Amino acid sequence: MSLPTTVTLLDVGPRDGLQNEKQIIATDIKVDLIARLGAAGLRHIEATSFVSPKWVPQMADAAEVMARIVRLPGVSYPVLTPNLKGFEAAMAAGATSVAVFAAASETFSQKNINCAIAESLQRFEPVMAAARAAGVPVRGYVSCVLGCPYEGEIAPQAVADVSAALFDMGCDDIGLGDTIGTGTPGKAQAMIAAVARRVPVDRLVGHYHDTYGQALANIYASLEMGLSHFDTSVGGLGGCPYAKGATGNVATEDVVYLLDGLGIATGIDLEALVDTAAWISEQLGRPPASRVARALLAKRGACAPANGE
Amino acid sequence: MSLPTTVTLLDVGPRDGLQNEKQIIATDIKVDLIARLGAAGLRHIEATSFVSPKWVPQMADAAEVMARIVRLPGVSYPVLTPNLKGFEAAMAAGATSVAVFAAASETFSQKNINCAIAESLQRFEPVMAAARAAGVPVRGYVSCVLGCPYEGEIAPQAVADVSAALFDMGCDDIGLGDTIGTGTPGKAQAMIAAVARRVPVDRLVGHYHDTYGQALANIYASLEMGLSHFDTSVGGLGGCPYAKGATGNVATEDVVYLLDGLGIATGIDLEALVDTAAWISEQLGRPPASRVARALLAKRGACAPANGE
Repeated sequence: MSLPTTVTLLDVGPRDGLQNEKQIIATDIKVDLIARLGAAGLRHIEATSFVSPKWVPQMADAAEVMARIVRLPGVSYPVLTPNLKGFEAAMAAGATSVAVFAAASETFSQKNINCAIAESLQRFEPVMAAARAAGVPVRGYVSCVLGCPYEGEIAPQAVADVSAALFDMGCDDIGLGDTIGTGTPGKAQAMIAAVARRVPVDRLVGHYHDTYGQALANIYASLEMGLSHFDTSVGGLGGCPYAKGATGNVATEDVVYLLDGLGIATGIDLEALVDTAAWISEQLGRPPASRVARALLAKRGACAPANGE
Repeated sequence: MSLPTTVTLLDVGPRDGLQNEKQIIATDIKVDLIARLGAAGLRHIEATSFVSPKWVPQMADAAEVMARIVRLPGVSYPVLTPNLKGFEAAMAAGATSVAVFAAASETFSQKNINCAIAESLQRFEPVMAAARAAGVPVRGYVSCVLGCPYEGEIAPQAVADVSAALFDMGCDDIGLGDTIGTGTPGKAQAMIAAVARRVPVDRLVGHYHDTYGQALANIYASLEMGLSHFDTSVGGLGGCPYAKGATGNVATEDVVYLLDGLGIATGIDLEALVDTAAWISEQLGRPPASRVARALLAKRGACAPANGE
């Protein structure tokens, strides 16, 4: 069993990470965060989300963020566009890659986006058509791939069905979201095996939450299955709305440390990344959720800015 | 590649976990902690350490702890005995299994126990002879198996040499300590492969710190190598003296969650374990370092006692 030699990370901190922050983060800070991530070597940075500000007030400055970021050559800044209106706003703001999201759980789909899975896929049709016409790549996210807060266990086949539907609609890659972080390595491998029978494995992206501390083990198990694309969040930004007070997205630093140790190239500078985690955590007034950031900041000693715990 | 169907955990919380606490923990609390761990299904609980109270004031009540614990049938309560004096005190206190410790790093051995590795092994000879005479099993720990705070990387062969020496001296099993938590899965597997050429794999115990969040990935990689014995610490008790403020021992809850998800039997009741983590964390005045404990306590809501963060 050979692991990939290079892995591509998408840092979702500026969007997924900040989205559920109660305090509204200044656009300056978001733009600065994106710049720092680019400088640390991230080549894919989720910039913002074009959703109704009524639903997600934190992302009300989406167009301004897109207008103000300094785009580095070779770096993509994907945005979330749940519907055609969001897609059109994203295009007007200069977005060049987008994402849509469905669920592998019927109950979650109903509670999260108020419609059945099949209906949610239909709603994406106009986005897919517009993206195709504009030559814009689309990532299709599937949530609850390793468990649902309402239904519990989710059958790998259900994940494969939604993933295949999104891929067949024209999605370029499929983000497999362990939304509540309940997955473990054996279940992750069984899920990936089911999906990989319908979608080429090089189009699959692991998006694992670390709520139960299992994300790195799941990423390692996914590498064994041939996955080489993962979503991560600097400083572990992003809580878990289904377990208030618990951690959410796996921290980019923790994943880079794992991959560095495995000899897998990411192009990311771990120390610059830890600086970025320390800086954004200081802005938010709490220590980073990332264990690597905490340990490396602790090693740096008294100059560690956000290691107050 | 098939994983083991059952795994044995030794909870080191009462000794390794509490040892570096600055405040002296009341003997009552230690005795209660050991009882709660037994009630949660732990069958191996590191009870205390017979060392000089000058070195480790927290363990000055070792004999009292051993006198007061209520021993459950089928449960072992090993203690650390670095020398013959400690071993004799342990026997007098009714200990029935003991452990000694060496290092895989010369510099660490010098700084931690003030002698070369070879000399430390010689010092254990009288302990081994006395244990053999008394029919008491001895575990031999090797520290720094995946990195040293002074030397950095440690060659797998160095770990294998010390492990084989301890095994050949009569140690019943070998604890492989990633003392500073810098290991990653590929390195863990290479280290285990080297050791397993000298010591049967069913005598090897993974003792991994979670300082960099890698412990569960390392445990999963170790399961793939055939390891079925691990040390863990309830609530993630135990900091890292080499990275102040960082986490130390991997949390028992996180490991049980991983193993439950893999369908591997441990005999441990996760909810009772989380109760124990919440209780001891409340005694220490801080939330558990364990992500599983935090997430499950957060799910329980307002009744979570130690989830103050």
